[in-house]
Amino acid sequence: MTERAFQDDYPDDLAWCYGCGRLNPHGHQIRSFWDGEETVCTFTPKPYHVAIPGYVYGGLIASLVDCHSTGTAAAAACRAAGRPLAAQPPLRFLTAALHVDYLRPTPLGVPLELRGRVREMKGRKVVVECEVRAGELLCARGEVVAVQVPDELRPSESAGG
Amino acid sequence: MTERAFQDDYPDDLAWCYGCGRLNPHGHQIRSFWDGEETVCTFTPKPYHVAIPGYVYGGLIASLVDCHSTGTAAAAACRAAGRPLAAQPPLRFLTAALHVDYLRPTPLGVPLELRGRVREMKGRKVVVECEVRAGELLCARGEVVAVQVPDELRPSESAGG
Repeated sequence: MTERAFQDDYPDDLAWCYGCGRLNPHGHQIRSFWDGEETVCTFTPKPYHVAIPGYVYGGLIASLVDCHSTGTAAAAACRAAGRPLAAQPPLRFLTAALHVDYLRPTPLGVPLELRGRVREMKGRKVVVECEVRAGELLCARGEVVAVQVPDELRPSESAGG
Repeated sequence: MTERAFQDDYPDDLAWCYGCGRLNPHGHQIRSFWDGEETVCTFTPKPYHVAIPGYVYGGLIASLVDCHSTGTAAAAACRAAGRPLAAQPPLRFLTAALHVDYLRPTPLGVPLELRGRVREMKGRKVVVECEVRAGELLCARGEVVAVQVPDELRPSESAGG
């Protein structure tokens, strides 16, 4: 895929996240994109991301929801501000609250599709809803309350902040 | 540690979970214990379990809350039934809903302590509250709605089910 993902535009000092940091070789390195008013991310769990044999580990699903939603928050905040994601200083979001309803066991061995949608945007806060599907099967529904990263949490080696 | 953890008594076919399965070599292999009416689990994140540099990845925290809470649910259900965790057929729980409030960034590089407590137990459902501390610092608070694994989800190679 040559399309540019949200995470490709995170500044280097904020690109180490285990879930979505492109610079973290141990992590999931998820990639999120716009699809109209929704955001989409496709991720295929590893064979060892198992809960009960044959089904995906719920903690992984929570992690995917978390990172795709904070990415959605960042992209939506930038879109609302009429600026590119890569602009300095970066708009990047942390999770204040995460909720996941597991609607059914999620089959392991197929790609999962996450679709995010902004439900609320107010000040430094963005609320994102996220659905997780295996094929046509809706397996989980999540909600993330994301808040903009406070400046004091940016690493000191930050180039642009 | 020679004390027996809840997870040591999960039957083999239910011991593959990425978060808490003792048979999953790729996973976190968390271990949970009773401490009076509370349950406790200590886990030291790996250096790569990072969110923003210096802080623990929220998806990992959600995963720990998830597995420690389902373990707590299983242990509490067995205790309430006056039976050992290892008894057959196993009482084992899946997550129906997971909620985590991230109260402050969680420092990376120190052991995290999770403490669980049963808030409600009704039929096949157990609601568990869980707090996550780094030293004295309360970093996150979680809640898990756990439901007993339906028999049809037990793998067919199950010995005891």
